[in-house]
Amino acid sequence: MNKNYEHYRALKAKIADINAAIAVLSWDQEVNMPPDGFAFRAQQLSTLSGILHDLSTSKEFEEVIAQLINDDTLSFKEKKNVQESFRIITRDKKLPTEFITKLSRLVSESYEAWIRARAANDYEVFAPYLEKIVQMHREKAELIGYKDHPYDALLDDYDQGLTTKELDRVFADVKVKLTAFVHKLKTHKQPDTSLLNGPFDKTKQMELCRVIATDLGYKWSAGRIDLSAHPFSTSFSPQDSRITTRVSETNLAESIWGTIHETGHAMYEQGLPTSEYGLPSGEAISLAIHESQSRLWENNVGKSWPFINAYWSIFQQFFPDNFKEHKALDFFKAINISEPNLIRINSDEVTYHFHILLRYEIEKGLIDGSYKVDGLDKVWNQKIKEYLGLEVPSAKDGILQDIHWSHGSIGYFPTYSLGSFYAAQFFHFASLAIPGLDKQIENKEFSHLLHWLHENIHQYGHIYTSQEICQKVCGEELDYKYFDAYLHRKYGLVYGF
Amino acid sequence: MNKNYEHYRALKAKIADINAAIAVLSWDQEVNMPPDGFAFRAQQLSTLSGILHDLSTSKEFEEVIAQLINDDTLSFKEKKNVQESFRIITRDKKLPTEFITKLSRLVSESYEAWIRARAANDYEVFAPYLEKIVQMHREKAELIGYKDHPYDALLDDYDQGLTTKELDRVFADVKVKLTAFVHKLKTHKQPDTSLLNGPFDKTKQMELCRVIATDLGYKWSAGRIDLSAHPFSTSFSPQDSRITTRVSETNLAESIWGTIHETGHAMYEQGLPTSEYGLPSGEAISLAIHESQSRLWENNVGKSWPFINAYWSIFQQFFPDNFKEHKALDFFKAINISEPNLIRINSDEVTYHFHILLRYEIEKGLIDGSYKVDGLDKVWNQKIKEYLGLEVPSAKDGILQDIHWSHGSIGYFPTYSLGSFYAAQFFHFASLAIPGLDKQIENKEFSHLLHWLHENIHQYGHIYTSQEICQKVCGEELDYKYFDAYLHRKYGLVYGF
Repeated sequence: MNKNYEHYRALKAKIADINAAIAVLSWDQEVNMPPDGFAFRAQQLSTLSGILHDLSTSKEFEEVIAQLINDDTLSFKEKKNVQESFRIITRDKKLPTEFITKLSRLVSESYEAWIRARAANDYEVFAPYLEKIVQMHREKAELIGYKDHPYDALLDDYDQGLTTKELDRVFADVKVKLTAFVHKLKTHKQPDTSLLNGPFDKTKQMELCRVIATDLGYKWSAGRIDLSAHPFSTSFSPQDSRITTRVSETNLAESIWGTIHETGHAMYEQGLPTSEYGLPSGEAISLAIHESQSRLWENNVGKSWPFINAYWSIFQQFFPDNFKEHKALDFFKAINISEPNLIRINSDEVTYHFHILLRYEIEKGLIDGSYKVDGLDKVWNQKIKEYLGLEVPSAKDGILQDIHWSHGSIGYFPTYSLGSFYAAQFFHFASLAIPGLDKQIENKEFSHLLHWLHENIHQYGHIYTSQEICQKVCGEELDYKYFDAYLHRKYGLVYGF
Repeated sequence: MNKNYEHYRALKAKIADINAAIAVLSWDQEVNMPPDGFAFRAQQLSTLSGILHDLSTSKEFEEVIAQLINDDTLSFKEKKNVQESFRIITRDKKLPTEFITKLSRLVSESYEAWIRARAANDYEVFAPYLEKIVQMHREKAELIGYKDHPYDALLDDYDQGLTTKELDRVFADVKVKLTAFVHKLKTHKQPDTSLLNGPFDKTKQMELCRVIATDLGYKWSAGRIDLSAHPFSTSFSPQDSRITTRVSETNLAESIWGTIHETGHAMYEQGLPTSEYGLPSGEAISLAIHESQSRLWENNVGKSWPFINAYWSIFQQFFPDNFKEHKALDFFKAINISEPNLIRINSDEVTYHFHILLRYEIEKGLIDGSYKVDGLDKVWNQKIKEYLGLEVPSAKDGILQDIHWSHGSIGYFPTYSLGSFYAAQFFHFASLAIPGLDKQIENKEFSHLLHWLHENIHQYGHIYTSQEICQKVCGEELDYKYFDAYLHRKYGLVYGF
């Protein structure tokens, strides 16, 4: 037993414990807290965050890592953990405390400005704050350093090792192939979606969410489902990984596929090794890989024809009045309709990626100076016109729709699209490895797929980067072609080509 | 603005934030947590407790209090806060770290031994651990110091300033007057309780619990009710003070009066001044005063004839099949039946106090050496025979029934009885101050009573001790006679004398 490593592991466990406490208080705030509780809860969360920061940047922690980083007796996994902790500490030390404080104050002000700007439906109210946010992120990129492009320094925060070069490569495909695909869809008749209008009994929707999550393999002994205004998943350990959903009488898809999405996230967390709690080897790889798990279950599995075909009799059983006149194929087509939407979070899985493409282009341009904050709303509107063929009627439905920039999250958006592309690629390789996977889905048999994800992705924690796990699982780098093929296969059935 | 005091206040707020986080994680554990979550939750709670301990015993905290304790510029309330913090720090410093560590280890072992002893129904399995617990508490009393009796040093932990002298005085009354009272009850016919056997619809019980808590004045914007195995109340701030209950189909009293009890605790917390969050002036006085609030609402209000009379039509409305043949008076008599029970927590509000009397006598005797652990089960059984007229069939139903000693809680039990006695005395003085209080209760009008409790008790936080608040509210010390009078008045109606 290496004493330094045990010390490091104990400190990381303590940090994880505080992180878990923050997560419990946050979950409670979204799910249970009575309205008057907000002010003191905010204060309690802020105190815990302060303690977390003190622990993560303590001299003690830094010193033990400094000793371990050159320790040749460590195992491969131990080395990887220490290296990852060293990387984060080294990066964080490049940002002076005054910079962090200033950014944190700016983010608070920007968030308030964004709220005001949305209320006034006026980009000009938010623009001066966005200007400062951009300036500080350009500064941040310089402080952290980068090889090719300043935006790379920011991307790295959300997905270690992700670069503008890789995104340029992937999104070049999006721009050409996805545009062509959307043009193709336009030449076909839209499916009828009226059968999704409800009303659907809310209690039955919740019941069905439970049935499906159970079938997929969600472990209830290590999780639970609740209602919240915005669905999310959260994890306090692999032994307690929870999901929330929302239920609308007029939107069955929101509860069911929202739940499948969150279940995908939660099953990733449940699949992390408990023995590595608190360590990089016990945590998820990145936002992109996390999103690949949720979208794989939501889209590649949950919105596939074998899945819908398998569950059609159950849907009919739960909602006999809604579906007695329809066939499984009607339902399959309806939930897979593709239709450009001004709002990212309301978009379908095809046109969604143009939303990310335009945000990627804008963020990258803001950071390298090729775009200006001044007049950016017009740039936004032009791109929406170009990519989605839509006119943006007002800033609220355009550049002011997302919270991210006001939160200081620049470099985050691309991970959403990468999640879909990784999902398609992983699902392809899972299909090769699991003979008859489609047939299994048709039989509501998901355990082999979940096991494959556990074995090939979850069990490693964050020993590998997104790029490395992709190489390990697929023997190649991320390739958009799998997503393209997946769309063609599925939408061929939906649109009849 | 006094800089030292602001510093002190900020440190106390931070300590309160960690305490609140521990409370949220504990609440979640009882109410929500999936079963696999236990191991990591225990670890997370232990980390938070460690941080709490470090903060409460930090040099920084100690120094700022040392500076403030002689600061003459402080207001009355500020002085009281500083004095209370100084008192606790001074007391805690008397216990060496090795003593604390040893006690904490002993408590873990004792708890396990108690579980084993209960399973084996064998006092001898627990006795060696109880012996050590007693030894360490005798040692603790010597370390902390006391004026008259070593047990006083332990009582002080749960109710600052409480002494053996005061308890001897109060329990002398219990021994004489309550014994006489029970003998009196025995000469009368027991009421028929069959109407309480149910079955009572569980959903309706929960609904009724909500109706009653709302009527009493529980603020739902700052609280909520949930189910848990053991009912409790917990508070994360005066703005978020929650209750739990349990619901049994065959025991209406458990849910309804259990809820009223916890609501009483929670309304105390809701009544504490938010501006004093984290300070002694923002926290409850003591266990005894806390219990006085829960029992006042549960017994003096909730089990009174005006209350039952007021709610009878509601009970009938909720459970028409159960109560259609009965009258309000039948129900009133049934819920107030007095009948000796071997188990403390199943006891009625009359005979309950013999359970506390015997535990008080035993604890005091163990600490001053007049009782021995060896053969203590026989002492217990003799006292149960003497006070309750019951034979103890086995250790599980006798000396092994409570968790407290195995937890190292010696000096805790008396606060339960004091709660009832304070409740009767406070209620008496509230009745004098609020003309027509009985009439108000009959009209389901509780706001004047709650306001009176807020104004006379809650608003002061812990500026005063139990004894001081009693003097302030009643102009006299705690006196058993109010409880005696209350029993005579109520049970006269129940038993017809």
